[in-house]
Amino acid sequence: MYRTHTCGELRIEHVGQEVVLSGWIQGVRNLGGMTFLTLRDRYGLTQIVIDDNTPEELKKQVEELGREFVVKITGEVIERSSKNSKMPTGDIEIGAKELVVLNKSEIPPFTIEDETDGGDELRMKYRYMDLRRNPVRKNLELRHRMGQEIRKYLDGEMFMEIETPYLIKSTPEGARDFIVPSRMNQGEFYALPQSPQTFKQLLMVSGFDRYFQIVKCFRDEDLRADRQPEFTQIDCEMSFVDQDDVLNMFEGLANHLFKVIKGIEIKEKFPQMPYSEAMEKYGSDKPDIRFDMQFVNLTDIVKGNNFVVFDTAEYVGGICAQACGNYTRKQLDKLTDFVRKPQIGARGLVYVKCNEDGSFKSSADKFFSQEDLKVWAEKMNAKAGDLILVLAGEKAHTLNALSELRLEMGEQLGLKDKNKFAPLWVVDFPLLEWDEDNKRFHAMHHPFTSPKAEDIHLFETDPGKVRANAYDLVINGVEIGGGSIRIHDDKLQQDMFKHLGFSEEEAKEQFGFLMDAFKYGAPPHGGAAFGFDRWVSLFAGLDSIRDVIAFPKNNSGRDVMIDSPSAVDNKQLDELSLKLKK
Amino acid sequence: MYRTHTCGELRIEHVGQEVVLSGWIQGVRNLGGMTFLTLRDRYGLTQIVIDDNTPEELKKQVEELGREFVVKITGEVIERSSKNSKMPTGDIEIGAKELVVLNKSEIPPFTIEDETDGGDELRMKYRYMDLRRNPVRKNLELRHRMGQEIRKYLDGEMFMEIETPYLIKSTPEGARDFIVPSRMNQGEFYALPQSPQTFKQLLMVSGFDRYFQIVKCFRDEDLRADRQPEFTQIDCEMSFVDQDDVLNMFEGLANHLFKVIKGIEIKEKFPQMPYSEAMEKYGSDKPDIRFDMQFVNLTDIVKGNNFVVFDTAEYVGGICAQACGNYTRKQLDKLTDFVRKPQIGARGLVYVKCNEDGSFKSSADKFFSQEDLKVWAEKMNAKAGDLILVLAGEKAHTLNALSELRLEMGEQLGLKDKNKFAPLWVVDFPLLEWDEDNKRFHAMHHPFTSPKAEDIHLFETDPGKVRANAYDLVINGVEIGGGSIRIHDDKLQQDMFKHLGFSEEEAKEQFGFLMDAFKYGAPPHGGAAFGFDRWVSLFAGLDSIRDVIAFPKNNSGRDVMIDSPSAVDNKQLDELSLKLKK
Repeated sequence: MYRTHTCGELRIEHVGQEVVLSGWIQGVRNLGGMTFLTLRDRYGLTQIVIDDNTPEELKKQVEELGREFVVKITGEVIERSSKNSKMPTGDIEIGAKELVVLNKSEIPPFTIEDETDGGDELRMKYRYMDLRRNPVRKNLELRHRMGQEIRKYLDGEMFMEIETPYLIKSTPEGARDFIVPSRMNQGEFYALPQSPQTFKQLLMVSGFDRYFQIVKCFRDEDLRADRQPEFTQIDCEMSFVDQDDVLNMFEGLANHLFKVIKGIEIKEKFPQMPYSEAMEKYGSDKPDIRFDMQFVNLTDIVKGNNFVVFDTAEYVGGICAQACGNYTRKQLDKLTDFVRKPQIGARGLVYVKCNEDGSFKSSADKFFSQEDLKVWAEKMNAKAGDLILVLAGEKAHTLNALSELRLEMGEQLGLKDKNKFAPLWVVDFPLLEWDEDNKRFHAMHHPFTSPKAEDIHLFETDPGKVRANAYDLVINGVEIGGGSIRIHDDKLQQDMFKHLGFSEEEAKEQFGFLMDAFKYGAPPHGGAAFGFDRWVSLFAGLDSIRDVIAFPKNNSGRDVMIDSPSAVDNKQLDELSLKLKK
Repeated sequence: MYRTHTCGELRIEHVGQEVVLSGWIQGVRNLGGMTFLTLRDRYGLTQIVIDDNTPEELKKQVEELGREFVVKITGEVIERSSKNSKMPTGDIEIGAKELVVLNKSEIPPFTIEDETDGGDELRMKYRYMDLRRNPVRKNLELRHRMGQEIRKYLDGEMFMEIETPYLIKSTPEGARDFIVPSRMNQGEFYALPQSPQTFKQLLMVSGFDRYFQIVKCFRDEDLRADRQPEFTQIDCEMSFVDQDDVLNMFEGLANHLFKVIKGIEIKEKFPQMPYSEAMEKYGSDKPDIRFDMQFVNLTDIVKGNNFVVFDTAEYVGGICAQACGNYTRKQLDKLTDFVRKPQIGARGLVYVKCNEDGSFKSSADKFFSQEDLKVWAEKMNAKAGDLILVLAGEKAHTLNALSELRLEMGEQLGLKDKNKFAPLWVVDFPLLEWDEDNKRFHAMHHPFTSPKAEDIHLFETDPGKVRANAYDLVINGVEIGGGSIRIHDDKLQQDMFKHLGFSEEEAKEQFGFLMDAFKYGAPPHGGAAFGFDRWVSLFAGLDSIRDVIAFPKNNSGRDVMIDSPSAVDNKQLDELSLKLKK
């Protein structure tokens, strides 16, 4: 028997008991006549004391111990003379009687502490050691807890967890698939799912009514900071619902998690904001509404003052940073540098300081009078002591730059409190998005999203204006998930493929099974999918999803711990009738 | 709003309420002046009545309805004059006031009834229709319920659900991997996991203490009736445990499922049987112990009677089929044909009928006297009226043939009651298995299984005799799962690879990361994995796992519904630097 208790379990009421603990040596402190070991397991830390009462042999054993050795210790629970109130087991210690080294450890490549000395690469290579650290373990504990609570909620709402296949069919639409060569069907390939979208719709056709799955999805895209080639989705679908039914259901899920995981009760309904409003007011389809600082459109009132930057701009807009009127030259220059960064790409920044005496100081003083600036300030609700920041240029581009500037100011002003949560539904997304490269529309979400009935006539005249029954859940500026009411009519689905530039043959070859299914009594249905990694990461207060994933890949898609991907035997390729191109 | 209630919900207390239901038309019965519709959804059936009170327009609509149309019906709940006690909603019906056809249906390719007229292939092609049938839906409901209960039990036992990666590294050991070409790392491949074995062991090294996952696994093997290229495993691992701890834990899991899913309380501990005993008594490492009929070894007492079949046999063994002494010539011939089938491959069958008068009638009467046969009967505990069946030949082969014969007799005698469950731990498996083709040993389970300490000395003299700390859970002759206490010492793991014929380089290249991990304080650990598909299928009383999988593949690994695998664009292959061999 390796243990009677865990290292997080013993309390004052256990004093006098003989116990067995197993765990890792977190540290050894030698204080002259006494030695203290800290023993660690997943559940906590327990102090072991070696003193005059300890058998001589054991004392010698202790001298050989190093950090991260795995040991089994038998001893008596003793009340500590100096208690440690910061430790749940801080009232007691174990007087060691017997020690067995279960396994030795070489000196770890980095320290197993909350703050470690290991760099990113080293920690990834020895991920199994990194996972021993408290903060990383806590992230995975949170992930486990959230997974169980999500299931509990959805099961309670009659959702059935149904596994959909991982070996499916490749479709050229959307992101790039990972493909899997078939040995039994030579020259043919499976694809790993980017999402179970078509399968969950088929389950609705099957009458399952409410489906969910917490499921891995795969995208072979070039990786950015917050992307992984494999990621986890909370995938859901419901029948006989309209948009409000879906939003209510998943607002319920979010509220359940807020409550049981974060201890937060959100009483109000989540606000809903049309996509067009989100773009006008925040320049983003995932606005962070923890703070206000909405855009004000100044285009109409700034023209005609010989300031060519504004006069030639499609859009001029500003934000008001409260109480930043005292920003220094250096601070303002930094902001200008910020908006000029290539990934933001504004040409420059116009500022207006609202002085305490009611006067204004602007970088565009040459072109605008105090009266002019006063009109701006009034329009923007700027008060004495505030700072107005204005960008101008092509509209979509400028809205985006202003959004980045807004988020930066939010950061600088400490408005992005990680303990505050501001959920928001963004609704009424456009159905189609113009693809300038290929000179055609493609689906903003996916080709199964239904258009709003009242917009269908626009397909012929202004397809870009057709709105979809689509919605995203945004929390603190993070897109947690989204979904739509789907098309369930085979004719409409065929039309949709036509609008997306599919030939009839292409549509049939790729999605024929779904359109066939729609001919046999498909119910109205809709659903949503949420990024599980992102949601956990948001609740953990992290900026990246990597630390909520046990074994993540790096930005080249490599697992540096197991050294994968790797070359395979030619025999394996032969069996698949494949050859590497040189 | 599509519905106020589901089709399984309305009872006598709802009478008088106006309700809205949505669902599928299961059937239309026209009884002269009245028409009855049966409306179906996942939750049940509700009868809709169209009579003199029904608006004329609605009557016309009803004439257009066909099977599997999706409709929304508004109406009043009425008490039925002739109630149907077999239907949960059988006390009421809905007097229809308004009907909306939500979607039409073409005539389904087969009937959506418990017993359908559709053949296997047709049902697979239109799987989304097959899934509408009660028995198939019930299987997936059972699967959902079991999944939730497994999680509930393991979560309650402090197991953490941790997702391990799907894109891992190919290893030539074991079954064939599915491989996934990497675009970002040209010429290299990921592999899909056959199981998360090494990752769960790394999680133990990380100190997670108790891990589980319900996870898809992949094997590119030629498919048999009960195999799928992707299947689902309940994967578990624990630290600081010995074999009994693991068996107790998962006996607890099995008992939880027996209780909450099947309503069965198993009070006794599951029996444990060494592998060697299972082979001697049942000729199988997964004996069905719902019935007895153990083998009796007759080798010693049948030799020397000039019956060359027995005299030259390595093994002669028999079973006693109670009360089958009256089997006819025809029945006995059929049994002989059965054991002679190529997949069983016995050369013949010797029978002994124990007549009611105390005499014996045997197919080997020429060689054995009544006295001889009496000795057999006594040894086998055969009584008047019983039938003794004897096979002879090479031992392993004959044990296997006798096992098949035993199962066949169990079937014929109705001893395989699907409502009876007889769990069994088979323990003390051999560590190694001789591979005659490659003239080397390979691991019977996998190379991480620990040998029994007391057998380690046999590695040098008789490696085939080394027993492992390995165990299987068998229920009713189905191997539900198994596991082992793992090696956690890097030296022993290296030795093990040596015994398995790995060179040091091979071992390092394939499993270096694991042996590295063992150098940094790996705890003693062990675990198990259970076939989720099989377990559900056993509880559902099915012989195949296919009907507990929403979208299974056929025996050629094809999904005939979506027509996958399929050819991919050359562009896709180009991006991966791959070429098809002609």
